[in-house]
Amino acid sequence: MKPSIVQPRTLSGFMELMPADQIKFNRIKSVLEEVYRLYGFYPLDTPVLEYAEILFAKAGGETEKQVYRFQKGDTDLAMRFDLTVPLAKYVAKNRGELTFPFKRYQIGKVYRGERAQKGRFREFYQSDIDIIGDGELSIINDAEIPSIIYNIFTRLGLDDFTIRMNNRKVLSGFFEMLSVGDRAEDIMRIVDKIEKAGRDAVVAELGSIGVGEDLCARLLDFIAIRGENEEVIEQLRALPDQTELFAKGVQELEQVTRYLDAFGVPRKNFRIDLSIARGLDYYTGTVYETTFNKHPEIGSICSGGRYDNLAEFYTKAQLPGVGISIGLTRLFYILNEMDYIDGGANSPADLLVIPMTEDLAPAISAASALRAQGIRTQIYFEDRKFKHKIGYADKLRIPFALFLGEEEIANHQVSLKNMQTGEQQTLPLEQAAEKVLSFIESAKSARIINIERG
Amino acid sequence: MKPSIVQPRTLSGFMELMPADQIKFNRIKSVLEEVYRLYGFYPLDTPVLEYAEILFAKAGGETEKQVYRFQKGDTDLAMRFDLTVPLAKYVAKNRGELTFPFKRYQIGKVYRGERAQKGRFREFYQSDIDIIGDGELSIINDAEIPSIIYNIFTRLGLDDFTIRMNNRKVLSGFFEMLSVGDRAEDIMRIVDKIEKAGRDAVVAELGSIGVGEDLCARLLDFIAIRGENEEVIEQLRALPDQTELFAKGVQELEQVTRYLDAFGVPRKNFRIDLSIARGLDYYTGTVYETTFNKHPEIGSICSGGRYDNLAEFYTKAQLPGVGISIGLTRLFYILNEMDYIDGGANSPADLLVIPMTEDLAPAISAASALRAQGIRTQIYFEDRKFKHKIGYADKLRIPFALFLGEEEIANHQVSLKNMQTGEQQTLPLEQAAEKVLSFIESAKSARIINIERG
Repeated sequence: MKPSIVQPRTLSGFMELMPADQIKFNRIKSVLEEVYRLYGFYPLDTPVLEYAEILFAKAGGETEKQVYRFQKGDTDLAMRFDLTVPLAKYVAKNRGELTFPFKRYQIGKVYRGERAQKGRFREFYQSDIDIIGDGELSIINDAEIPSIIYNIFTRLGLDDFTIRMNNRKVLSGFFEMLSVGDRAEDIMRIVDKIEKAGRDAVVAELGSIGVGEDLCARLLDFIAIRGENEEVIEQLRALPDQTELFAKGVQELEQVTRYLDAFGVPRKNFRIDLSIARGLDYYTGTVYETTFNKHPEIGSICSGGRYDNLAEFYTKAQLPGVGISIGLTRLFYILNEMDYIDGGANSPADLLVIPMTEDLAPAISAASALRAQGIRTQIYFEDRKFKHKIGYADKLRIPFALFLGEEEIANHQVSLKNMQTGEQQTLPLEQAAEKVLSFIESAKSARIINIERG
Repeated sequence: MKPSIVQPRTLSGFMELMPADQIKFNRIKSVLEEVYRLYGFYPLDTPVLEYAEILFAKAGGETEKQVYRFQKGDTDLAMRFDLTVPLAKYVAKNRGELTFPFKRYQIGKVYRGERAQKGRFREFYQSDIDIIGDGELSIINDAEIPSIIYNIFTRLGLDDFTIRMNNRKVLSGFFEMLSVGDRAEDIMRIVDKIEKAGRDAVVAELGSIGVGEDLCARLLDFIAIRGENEEVIEQLRALPDQTELFAKGVQELEQVTRYLDAFGVPRKNFRIDLSIARGLDYYTGTVYETTFNKHPEIGSICSGGRYDNLAEFYTKAQLPGVGISIGLTRLFYILNEMDYIDGGANSPADLLVIPMTEDLAPAISAASALRAQGIRTQIYFEDRKFKHKIGYADKLRIPFALFLGEEEIANHQVSLKNMQTGEQQTLPLEQAAEKVLSFIESAKSARIINIERG
């Protein structure tokens, strides 16, 4: 009896890639992991499910509506909606066993029950790093973060991007100096939009909450301060009537920018941008955003900052930290839609062995030898016409095919075909392996993302 | 106002590792990925959440009770309980776009709402590979699987394991020959226990379902057939009154074992074991189990087999396949509990730079240079006593510390301390890097799992 058929489908808002795209995605993910590891971050892997009580210790009703929350028996469960809350729980729970500063990265799926729409995901990867101190954490850690961002994006093949940095103490201090009182948060939220909404819209919105012309002008002059890091800091230092908070913020900005050269971050990829505020109640010092120069409409692709207290909902211990997050699924989706991701290395194998004799032993032995040298090797075992076999290599974009017929076997040789050039050579297996290995090596230098070609 | 504190805790049955253990876990996971890639498998990453209707197209009430299933709005959702059902959905859904044979690996978390107990997990990693054909799939694919298993476990550092193989057609055919009729499935289930329950228990249980002494003896003689692969196959060929199914099964066994040498699987790590049945309604041909010779009580650590129809609930297309699965979380848990996993390489960094001057630029430049060479490098930025700094390297088991004081900087040198031997040398940075790189290289040959030391 045949079972009845259920239409196979995937939930909307859940990215499920075709195989070749999955390889592209994984290549990007590998670069992130590689860089995090180079900077000495621990990997961390926390559960996807947590007690709802834990995940919502902080969150208000707004967040709760956007999550997957359910009962199982007596337990109120929820799927994590970010990687920060689980980190806070982890550090608070294991504080006695951890060594500080605690540096961890986590690349994992998070869940938001939002209305699905094109480019919006309900299940998506976040890629986070954080450095957590116990009681205190040197400001120089904030200086290392731009170097990590720079390394990630250059290793991905990009160079036309800008890491923008600001300091929340500078912003808050400046509002103190303007005596805007409790309108500071509203103003910050409005100012944060200037990149996307433009100056006029911001002026209008500021007006609507009662920010007068003079105040508005001072504010806009302030966030328009430009120049090399040293020049910006000099201009900030020259502002009159500084509060303690403001001066502290400027000092931090100076400390964080001082070592950028030593960290290898070129000036062209970094600038202080006094309009950046990032979220409102979390960050307390340095804040970061990263944008593609040619695609400001994408918004920030890597953001984060310094916070005073990671886990105040789980422990009385003061746990300051600094971190950044990349919305990996969204970033991949956008770049792939624009066809900016290299498709030249999306094959699952470097070589396909096509046996031409009934006895498969020589083909299998050759494949074993190639794999032992690190060459990703498939053997085509199916009983199909030759055209179909070579078509398989073609469809999978496998760069080399290797034929083993009676004659090759008798002469201890193989026939190696470069699938891109069509060139075919008969040569000993060792030499074929060398050719493939040198191709693999040269392919490594290809840019994974090439935004310039767009 | 300080918020009230929620006790930080993790759901029971959800593995959440300490950082050093997470590194151990990831090393094992990396080896699996590396081997899958060497054999040319595509990576795949399907959603954790699916329509309940999809996940339970096949499953009965028993499975449903053990899952996380819930409503979100009008949608009936469930968390995946294995990686096979999502694969079936994926292949059925994308059949027109995929190229066959389709080889994929997936290492992902799956969920079972089972009663939590020591060593039982509700969230755990499965690590699956499958080769799927469209309409047909050569039997030689089944022969490649033991080579993949062998490669995985030897690369992990093991050699004392046995891949056991059988063929369901041989079993079913043999039951036809015994004319046991519809008791075949019960008998298979009982016989499958012989390794764990012992011969006497199996005889008693067979008796209880009415299998007479003579039949029992023939059955137990059959599953006790031992010897080199060729000898076993010869004995099977010599059995009287063979049915077509049995003969077909023996032929498959012969085809699958014929190329083991070419695949590089040593005889000592492989044997035909006619007692192995694996699940009852899924596998239709070759079946595999893998056991540690010294720890039969762990049971099979890598199992799988051949099936005729991957996705009969989602498509009318016939999609035969062969695959294996490793219960990665359970395997890690058991090996780690027994202290079989190498703890020598669980540091997040190869080297800790400890700046000894107020100006951090030289230390940062040194770290940048080391990272550029692939050395995982941390810089200790905190303002603490020297003892505390070196204690940090010690606690994280970072193998090297590098000091940069006024004198070293003036002489263009660094002081490198081997944290294990205590040996300290002052030398140029390039030479320090070479020493660390050679240490990293030699550490690669360490066994990740060393069951022999137990």
